[in-house]
Amino acid sequence: MSNVTVIGAGSWGTALAMVLADNNHQVRLWARRDEQINEINQQHRNEAYLPGVELPQQIIGYTDLAQAVEDVEVLLLVVPTKAIRETVRSLREALTTPVTIIHASKGIEPGTHKRISEMIEDEFKGTDFLRDVVVLSGPSHAEEVSMRQPTTVTVSSLNHEASSLAQNLFMNQHFRVYTNQDLIGVETGGALKNIIALVCGLTNGLGMGDNTKAAIMTRGLAEITRLGVKQGANPLTFAGLSGLGDLIVTCTSVHSRNFRAGKMIGQGQSLDEVLRNMGMVVEGIRTTQAAYELANELDVEMPITSALYEVLFEGIHPKEASEKLMGRVKKHEVEQISDFLESE
Amino acid sequence: MSNVTVIGAGSWGTALAMVLADNNHQVRLWARRDEQINEINQQHRNEAYLPGVELPQQIIGYTDLAQAVEDVEVLLLVVPTKAIRETVRSLREALTTPVTIIHASKGIEPGTHKRISEMIEDEFKGTDFLRDVVVLSGPSHAEEVSMRQPTTVTVSSLNHEASSLAQNLFMNQHFRVYTNQDLIGVETGGALKNIIALVCGLTNGLGMGDNTKAAIMTRGLAEITRLGVKQGANPLTFAGLSGLGDLIVTCTSVHSRNFRAGKMIGQGQSLDEVLRNMGMVVEGIRTTQAAYELANELDVEMPITSALYEVLFEGIHPKEASEKLMGRVKKHEVEQISDFLESE
Repeated sequence: MSNVTVIGAGSWGTALAMVLADNNHQVRLWARRDEQINEINQQHRNEAYLPGVELPQQIIGYTDLAQAVEDVEVLLLVVPTKAIRETVRSLREALTTPVTIIHASKGIEPGTHKRISEMIEDEFKGTDFLRDVVVLSGPSHAEEVSMRQPTTVTVSSLNHEASSLAQNLFMNQHFRVYTNQDLIGVETGGALKNIIALVCGLTNGLGMGDNTKAAIMTRGLAEITRLGVKQGANPLTFAGLSGLGDLIVTCTSVHSRNFRAGKMIGQGQSLDEVLRNMGMVVEGIRTTQAAYELANELDVEMPITSALYEVLFEGIHPKEASEKLMGRVKKHEVEQISDFLESE
Repeated sequence: MSNVTVIGAGSWGTALAMVLADNNHQVRLWARRDEQINEINQQHRNEAYLPGVELPQQIIGYTDLAQAVEDVEVLLLVVPTKAIRETVRSLREALTTPVTIIHASKGIEPGTHKRISEMIEDEFKGTDFLRDVVVLSGPSHAEEVSMRQPTTVTVSSLNHEASSLAQNLFMNQHFRVYTNQDLIGVETGGALKNIIALVCGLTNGLGMGDNTKAAIMTRGLAEITRLGVKQGANPLTFAGLSGLGDLIVTCTSVHSRNFRAGKMIGQGQSLDEVLRNMGMVVEGIRTTQAAYELANELDVEMPITSALYEVLFEGIHPKEASEKLMGRVKKHEVEQISDFLESE
């Protein structure tokens, strides 16, 4: 039995807190708003994020960060990519002992092109409070995890002992945890699949069907793999749960907010309208910007990402972009897929 | 402009005949039943297979096989795997000049474990009537192709000129055709994805969600790849349209009959009941038998295929089989995925 503090009480943070509680750990769940934490502590509910779900009683909510992290050895960090640096700075102030941080966020920072683990390390630089960083990623809708549906995920860290620690904390009958030593690949796959989900939504919004979606997903995974391998990832990671698995769940499932945002764009809404209508973070949009910059910098061909970038940030019509994508000159398939191997 | 004869007027044969007609080829479409061919010639419809779709007028239906193949240089063969040998024997009798056969069927023969192209070659042995065999495969629901939705497929042959011939016949604005020289990989991926679709349907029928489905698809593609590579296929083919792409469309789409059959089994129907209720060929069932035999013979680990085999042919309860699958001991992910590389 361990003490674990979960930072961020959205749907995914709460669902992961439930897995930890099911495994008999003592779980503190931190969020900013009093109202939400009161609901968690008094009604054992988090209705805005996991409607209808009853939370285990060993999940105790906190709004005071110092209390939430006091004497804890493991933190689970589940906040939007945009909030990572600010949250970690607050954590650094609040901590009194070193911690292992497991993060379950998905994104790349525009400008710096850093992965989440790199951003966390940046913010802890010069202190002794960060022991290890672990990423947890895979095909896992929070709603289904909260209903204890069979789910599989991957954990990865530069330190294999830290991955094993995370594996042992989360593993149970419904929630299977695999380790993978390729931190770059696991973080890159998780972040970039949101781009492909946006494009799948976009073609769906344009009225295209399952054949188109499958083609976008297949060629999308190939271009994600190319970018990852160029940065040192293992290509096999992209064929695993945190790559292909997460791509499938995000592109084909009704729960995916990136797919839904893409669909609205395909139906003719502007980026501003979509962001206003969603009222939630759509990670894929900033990730598209970061991946587009990175692909140019590293000279990696990413036609699907580029097409989406042109639609989101350069005013190209979705129909024009998707026709260009589907109408590229005929090519030999394996040549195209194996670009990422040849480019090493 | 070429003359092409399509053998088999089910939904896929008819949709492919439409692509050829759209490209201004003269298309003869052969089927056994007078009633169906009359409907095609007089009403330009094939309501039982593509309801509501109007067929181009250059598609002419035939029931007489000798007339259908007279003076033709390219045949497109689209019949169930079970009917391949018998159909090819009739063709061999009817042909008077050599042909290139493009096939678009998906299966492996139980007992011999032969792929479709091998079965076709077997039946032409000792004659001069077979020039080349090409396979056409990829993520392509017939209904969507008939509505000219953007679709991508792969063609493959031992002879690259034959692949190019097929590419040129079919390629148009809506229907993109890629070539791939790995005939073994393209045929194996197309056949074995039906096994995974059955298992996805089965877990769905048991009430499991998208997280489980994504895990099954990810680990399913890994085991298909292992079997293919052991037979000489290129692992990259399985990451392409005829592997991953077709897997996605078959496992996630409402049109898939293998998924639907698996779902009925998950809901408690017996194999006999399902076959009776479907009233259509479910290719994945015979393919499961063939792949299970082949995996044992070649000593390739295929846990998902084995679990399905036990349910279909040995009376194991679907719930028990799927719990065993999801509850395997914790493992390092890349080790598991890379089995197929290590086993070479």
